[in-house]
Amino acid sequence: MQNSTEISQLGEFGLIDRLTKDFPLKNESTHKGVGDDAAVLSFGDKEALVTTDLLLEGIHFDLRYVPLKHLGYKAAIVNFSDIYAMNGTPKQITVSLGISSRFTVEHIDELYAGIRLACEMYGVDLVGGDTSASVTGLVISITCLGEAKKEDIVYRDGAKPTDLICVSGDLGAAYMGLQLLERENQVAAQSGSKEPFQPDFAGKEYILERQLKPEARRDVVEQLRKEGIRPTSMMDVSDGLSSELLHICKASGVGCRIYEDRIPIDYQTAVMAEEFNMNLVTAAMNGGEDYELLFTVPLTDNEKIEKMQGVRMIGYITKPELGAALVTRDGAEMQIRAQGWNAFEK
Amino acid sequence: MQNSTEISQLGEFGLIDRLTKDFPLKNESTHKGVGDDAAVLSFGDKEALVTTDLLLEGIHFDLRYVPLKHLGYKAAIVNFSDIYAMNGTPKQITVSLGISSRFTVEHIDELYAGIRLACEMYGVDLVGGDTSASVTGLVISITCLGEAKKEDIVYRDGAKPTDLICVSGDLGAAYMGLQLLERENQVAAQSGSKEPFQPDFAGKEYILERQLKPEARRDVVEQLRKEGIRPTSMMDVSDGLSSELLHICKASGVGCRIYEDRIPIDYQTAVMAEEFNMNLVTAAMNGGEDYELLFTVPLTDNEKIEKMQGVRMIGYITKPELGAALVTRDGAEMQIRAQGWNAFEK
Repeated sequence: MQNSTEISQLGEFGLIDRLTKDFPLKNESTHKGVGDDAAVLSFGDKEALVTTDLLLEGIHFDLRYVPLKHLGYKAAIVNFSDIYAMNGTPKQITVSLGISSRFTVEHIDELYAGIRLACEMYGVDLVGGDTSASVTGLVISITCLGEAKKEDIVYRDGAKPTDLICVSGDLGAAYMGLQLLERENQVAAQSGSKEPFQPDFAGKEYILERQLKPEARRDVVEQLRKEGIRPTSMMDVSDGLSSELLHICKASGVGCRIYEDRIPIDYQTAVMAEEFNMNLVTAAMNGGEDYELLFTVPLTDNEKIEKMQGVRMIGYITKPELGAALVTRDGAEMQIRAQGWNAFEK
Repeated sequence: MQNSTEISQLGEFGLIDRLTKDFPLKNESTHKGVGDDAAVLSFGDKEALVTTDLLLEGIHFDLRYVPLKHLGYKAAIVNFSDIYAMNGTPKQITVSLGISSRFTVEHIDELYAGIRLACEMYGVDLVGGDTSASVTGLVISITCLGEAKKEDIVYRDGAKPTDLICVSGDLGAAYMGLQLLERENQVAAQSGSKEPFQPDFAGKEYILERQLKPEARRDVVEQLRKEGIRPTSMMDVSDGLSSELLHICKASGVGCRIYEDRIPIDYQTAVMAEEFNMNLVTAAMNGGEDYELLFTVPLTDNEKIEKMQGVRMIGYITKPELGAALVTRDGAEMQIRAQGWNAFEK
C-alpha cells in the first residue's frame, strides 16, 4: 500500500468519520445511522431480528493468508447469513473494531472496503459501532438487525417427523480451502523466502473463494418464497452440517436420517480431500463455514424441491427415539456427533 | 473460588447454555431470545434504538483491580446509558465474549452474574451473543436494543442558542477512582507481597463505586419526562464533558459557554485530586466514564430545572461563531478542547 497513516494521527473520532462516510443509508427503516449515542430504526408492523458475531485474530482468521478486504466482506456476510436463516432480510449492521498498533489507517480502510461491498451487495446499512485500540491483534464484532413478517419467520424448532431435510449448494469446500491456505502458508514459511506469499492456486479457485469470500444464500430464501415453500425449520451451516442437524433435532424434539450419497460435494473439494488424505464425508459433515442453508420442508413439498436448482434433499426427519444418524453408502447407520468447529478445543 | 472448570470441558454450546439459562425474558417486545440464528424482537409502533460497545482487556479494564462481576455490570450499564441518552428505554442486549485459556467457567459465571444483575435492575432481556476462545485476554462486546416513541427521541443536533446546558450528578469521580485503583495496585506490586491486593479504601468508597459500579441515569430521564421537559439535545458523559460538549456543538452547529464554578464535583473527587496534585477541573472536564447525562433545554425550562434534584445548569448554548469555551472563576475564557479519553493516543 502506498500510504501509511498511523491511527493515532486521526484519533478515534477521525477514524470513525473516515470509515463511515462512504456508507449511504439505503433502508427506509433506518431513521438515523452513525453519529449519536444510538442508531434509530423503525420496523413498523414487522418483527426485528438481531444476530451478532465476534471474530478474533488468531482464532477465527489468520492475516497471513486472509486479505483484509475479504475479511471485512466475510465478517458482514456471516451475520447476513444468520438473518436469512430466519427467513428474514438483513437491514442494518453495527461494526465494532479493536485495532492493535501494527495496523495503519489504510489497513482499516481495506477492511471497511470489504464491509462496504457486502453492505452494497445485500442492501444493508451501517448504523453504528465502536472503535478502539487493542493490545494484541484485530477484533471484529458485528451485530446485524433484520426484519421479517411475523408469520414468515422460520425457527429451528418446527421440524416434524417425515419432513424432508434439504441443503443448498455444496458442503466442505470452505474447510478444504482453509486447509489449502494453511498448507501453502507453511510451505512459504519453511522456504524462508522473503517474497510475499504468492502460491499457485490455479484450479483451486472455487474452494478458496468459498473460504475467503463466502456469500449468504439470499437467492435460496427468495426462491423458496417464490415457490411458495415455507420451511418448517432452518439454519445456516456455519459450524458444520453435523452440528446444525443436531441443533434442529434438539430444538424440534425429533431425530433424523441423512444419506451419505446425498450430501452435495463439489469436485474440487473431493480432489483436495484426496490430496490431503482426508475423509471427504467428515470434511463435508464437520468442516463448517459453508454458510449454506439447511432446512426442513413438509413431505408434500417434495416435487417443488426437486425442481429447485442448487437445493438437495439429503434425508428426512424421524421420531426422536430413532436418534440422528448418517446412512452410509453400504447401508450402515452411524450416529451423528457434533464434531463441528469448537473454539475451546485444545 | 472453590470450583474451577475448564471452559473446554463444557464446549461453546455448553457454556452458552450455562451462561444464559438464568436470564428469564422480561419484555413483551422480546419474542424469541437466545437459541436460534437470531433473536426476534417486535417494536410495534415504536422506534428501535441500537448501540454497541467493545471492551478489551488491557485497554478498557485491568483485571488486577476490577472484579469480574463489576466488569459485567459496567459493560451492560454503559450500553443502557447510551439508550437513555437518546431518551429511550433499553430492552434487549446481545453479549459476545472472547475468552483466553486462563479463565475458568466460574470466572465467566462471575462476569455474567454482573450482567444479569444489570439486566434485572434495568429490566433488560439477554437475547443472544457469540462465545469464543481468544488468544490473549478477555473481549466483551455488547449490543443493546432499546425503544422510544418517535417524537420522544433526543438527538445531539437539536441544541439552539440560548438553550441551557445541564448535567446530572457530578463529574470526575470515576476518573479519580481509577487513579486510586492504579496507584494502590502499583504500591501492592512494588511491595512484592504475595497476599491478595487488599488496600484500605475507607472514605474513598464513592469514587471507587463510580469507577467500578456506575449506574445509567434512568432516574433523570424519568424525572425529565415527569416534569414535562424535553431536552433539545442529550448525550451521556462517557469520554468526558469536554469531548461531549464538542460533539453537541458540532452536531447542532452551535457554540457554548460553561462556567468552571458550576461544574458539579463531589467532595471525595476534590480530595483525591489534591492528593494526586491534579487539576480538579481538568479531571472533571476530561476524566470520562461518569455516565451522567449532559443535555440542553430551552431557556423557558429554567425554573423547572432549578427545582430538579441532582441536575445542575452549567452554562448555555451560543451562536457557532463564539466557539466553545470554559469561563474560569476569574472570568477568563478558555477554549474547550477534546482531551477526552482516546484509546489510540500513545
